[in-house]
Amino acid sequence: MQHLLTTNELKVEEIYQILQDAQRFADGMTWRPNGKLFSANLFYENSTRTKCSFEIAERKLGLHVIPFEVQTSSVQKGETLYDTVKTLEAIGVHTIVIRHSQDRYFDDLVGKVNVPIINGGDGCGHHPTQSLLDLLTIYQEFGRFKGLKIAIIGDIRHSRVARSNADALTRLGAEVMFSGPEEWFDSHSLHSSRFLPIDYAIPQADVVMLLRVQHERHQKKGSFTASEYHQKFGLTIEREKKMKPGSIIMHPAPVNRNVEIADSLVECSRSRIFKQMKNGVFVRMAVLKRSLESLNGGYINENAYSERQLHSI
Amino acid sequence: MQHLLTTNELKVEEIYQILQDAQRFADGMTWRPNGKLFSANLFYENSTRTKCSFEIAERKLGLHVIPFEVQTSSVQKGETLYDTVKTLEAIGVHTIVIRHSQDRYFDDLVGKVNVPIINGGDGCGHHPTQSLLDLLTIYQEFGRFKGLKIAIIGDIRHSRVARSNADALTRLGAEVMFSGPEEWFDSHSLHSSRFLPIDYAIPQADVVMLLRVQHERHQKKGSFTASEYHQKFGLTIEREKKMKPGSIIMHPAPVNRNVEIADSLVECSRSRIFKQMKNGVFVRMAVLKRSLESLNGGYINENAYSERQLHSI
Amino acid sequence: MQHLLTTNELKVEEIYQILQDAQRFADGMTWRPNGKLFSANLFYENSTRTKCSFEIAERKLGLHVIPFEVQTSSVQKGETLYDTVKTLEAIGVHTIVIRHSQDRYFDDLVGKVNVPIINGGDGCGHHPTQSLLDLLTIYQEFGRFKGLKIAIIGDIRHSRVARSNADALTRLGAEVMFSGPEEWFDSHSLHSSRFLPIDYAIPQADVVMLLRVQHERHQKKGSFTASEYHQKFGLTIEREKKMKPGSIIMHPAPVNRNVEIADSLVECSRSRIFKQMKNGVFVRMAVLKRSLESLNGGYINENAYSERQLHSI
Repeated sequence: MQHLLTTNELKVEEIYQILQDAQRFADGMTWRPNGKLFSANLFYENSTRTKCSFEIAERKLGLHVIPFEVQTSSVQKGETLYDTVKTLEAIGVHTIVIRHSQDRYFDDLVGKVNVPIINGGDGCGHHPTQSLLDLLTIYQEFGRFKGLKIAIIGDIRHSRVARSNADALTRLGAEVMFSGPEEWFDSHSLHSSRFLPIDYAIPQADVVMLLRVQHERHQKKGSFTASEYHQKFGLTIEREKKMKPGSIIMHPAPVNRNVEIADSLVECSRSRIFKQMKNGVFVRMAVLKRSLESLNGGYINENAYSERQLHSI
Repeated sequence: MQHLLTTNELKVEEIYQILQDAQRFADGMTWRPNGKLFSANLFYENSTRTKCSFEIAERKLGLHVIPFEVQTSSVQKGETLYDTVKTLEAIGVHTIVIRHSQDRYFDDLVGKVNVPIINGGDGCGHHPTQSLLDLLTIYQEFGRFKGLKIAIIGDIRHSRVARSNADALTRLGAEVMFSGPEEWFDSHSLHSSRFLPIDYAIPQADVVMLLRVQHERHQKKGSFTASEYHQKFGLTIEREKKMKPGSIIMHPAPVNRNVEIADSLVECSRSRIFKQMKNGVFVRMAVLKRSLESLNGGYINENAYSERQLHSI
Repeated sequence: MQHLLTTNELKVEEIYQILQDAQRFADGMTWRPNGKLFSANLFYENSTRTKCSFEIAERKLGLHVIPFEVQTSSVQKGETLYDTVKTLEAIGVHTIVIRHSQDRYFDDLVGKVNVPIINGGDGCGHHPTQSLLDLLTIYQEFGRFKGLKIAIIGDIRHSRVARSNADALTRLGAEVMFSGPEEWFDSHSLHSSRFLPIDYAIPQADVVMLLRVQHERHQKKGSFTASEYHQKFGLTIEREKKMKPGSIIMHPAPVNRNVEIADSLVECSRSRIFKQMKNGVFVRMAVLKRSLESLNGGYINENAYSERQLHSI
């Protein structure tokens, strides 16, 4: 049973395996499980990118997606996540994607359910498919991780991505720097020695990875206006000019334009923001394939790979 | 035009026909209508199990399911159920599943619409596919209904299941006993002579069928705390020990753990709660097949049955 | 890149081309793009007819529809329509249908996005597929537009349909008359000379096209009760009797029964209200085909047309 819960639990070789499969999907590989398989996407938090991206990935693999809307489900009658997942398992769902506001919601499920869980984001914790799509985007650009300098800038404490990426990138040989408001930096869980003022970080970074200001996760209003944040911690037009040749801009989106990044830079030549979204579909296909291959039931056979298609595109 | 509105209207032989088809689906039969057929699931009340179960059943039959969310439909502009159904009929939907809070909502539709209606639950009235999946689960267990003693325990007045099951089980030859809070028992519509204290009912029952406490249907707070209800009317660990050898536990779910049933009994060896959910898909496939076969339009032919698959699984 | 934004921008020959394709779909033509294509329906306003109709049209063309619910999307995090569309484009959606409360929302998109936009209704502005299905319904009835008299009656100021239809019908050679409450008539954008009292308009009209009283778009309560409106501006049973032989009744629905039209007339022999809905699917198939054919990517080939099916039905 291959769940995908956090990137921390993935060994380096597993990460490379997923990225390799994702790149094969990007290159046109088709892969289909045998038989009629069902998936469900349980999004307890709002999402466009992640949910739609999983929906497309699932359909590209030939899965049938069972609609599930929290607002109209028995969750409204008090049903727990565990009972909801057991229900979907009982009626024949083969893989479940979950986004939930509770950190490590999956601890209540692992070992007790017989359906692979793919974490689509838990609280302020993890977002492994976002991390993996970030890694794919970086690898496509540079062909390596070793020696790269990655500046992660912004709302680090509330970011699922910051943690997951920092851990994975470090293990893959990259050097991670953090920047942004110091009060939003969590020195307990991250190495404070890596914290740098933004104007030191940006000129030496191969990747400037901006984080979304998550208004919806801040208990109280921050001490910044949008414009102050942009001037102090955002990628302004001036700061972009100081970026290294060949360096790139990333952001998990949705972007707050003119807050984390100047409006005109979102689609500039350095930006890989939409490339990241594109890669998200391929990474999710790879992750779903990995979970489906772990199922017992003869769903997978050698013929599932269509090499013809792989080579022809 | 074969609607499925209540179990009361089904003759005994029709019930057996549906159960037989459901069992054939459980055994791996595939059946497909010809052409591209469309279904819609109109759930005016929250649901996970019933809705998702119909969604899977529909897709297993090769139907295309048109998403319909009451919250974002023209129902919000005051459109009636009748006009909504007529609209779906006009645009080419071939079968419609409806759950609605109004008792016998279908009286406004039958005879006026040209699309089969499958009742997914009406108010406190009926829930025929739930009854049928309960019957299938009992039949799988005992191979008969005649002579079985079924204890239906709990919130009988508000339960769609209690009424439907009591009627069908009695006609099929089983003996039905009721138990639970007397103030929740409706002596007008049910035989009061069958009402028994829980500790008399449980030891003689072949099937202990617990009903959900439907907090959302009680106008005012009941006179019980969860813990009081559990002690007085729930299947406690102690009561389970007094059950007959070979007897089983059923519940339509979602379960209020430690209210109707002790948490640890939900997945115990006597429990058929998840088996019921599994059977729900097969019963719904059988019911949809029945309705689709009643359509005029050449959708059905002999080849639609794949006997090969039927025998090979 | 063939968007469909307004009927005004469609040349007469383009209108005929769409109507011709729609009629071919009505006659049983099948047409499928090559490969696995994805669509998304972004409905920022409530809808049953238009949304479900597009859903069916898309599936009839073999498209995979990615569910998108505004309420659970990143729109809730403040994401703009532009960024939402760019996201869907990035993850591989091939055509997007949008309904939005803002007039001409599409002006922010056209020229900047690489995915065809099909307007499913903008504010009080346009609703081109509704117009086209109205035109198809009229053409099916009379085999021509030239010389027909069309009375458009009701809430003309707030009606997306009134404007679009008046323009298109006039260009196609029909004569358009307006009627209804004068305070709801917008003389700036429409020719006031065409405004007629209802009892002058109805007896000479070939088509009596009623508009929905859009309670949800009126800032303040109108000066009419439902019953007053019906008597003054509705199609009462008495007024129907004065209609010309062979003339028909149309309404975009949802109908307010006994307001715009007497309840018993909704399904009378003159009424084409449900026929309009049926035609909506075919018109949307034609419009989607037109947009998909404009994509570069080799999705379309000659074999996509199945002439066999076209002739056999």
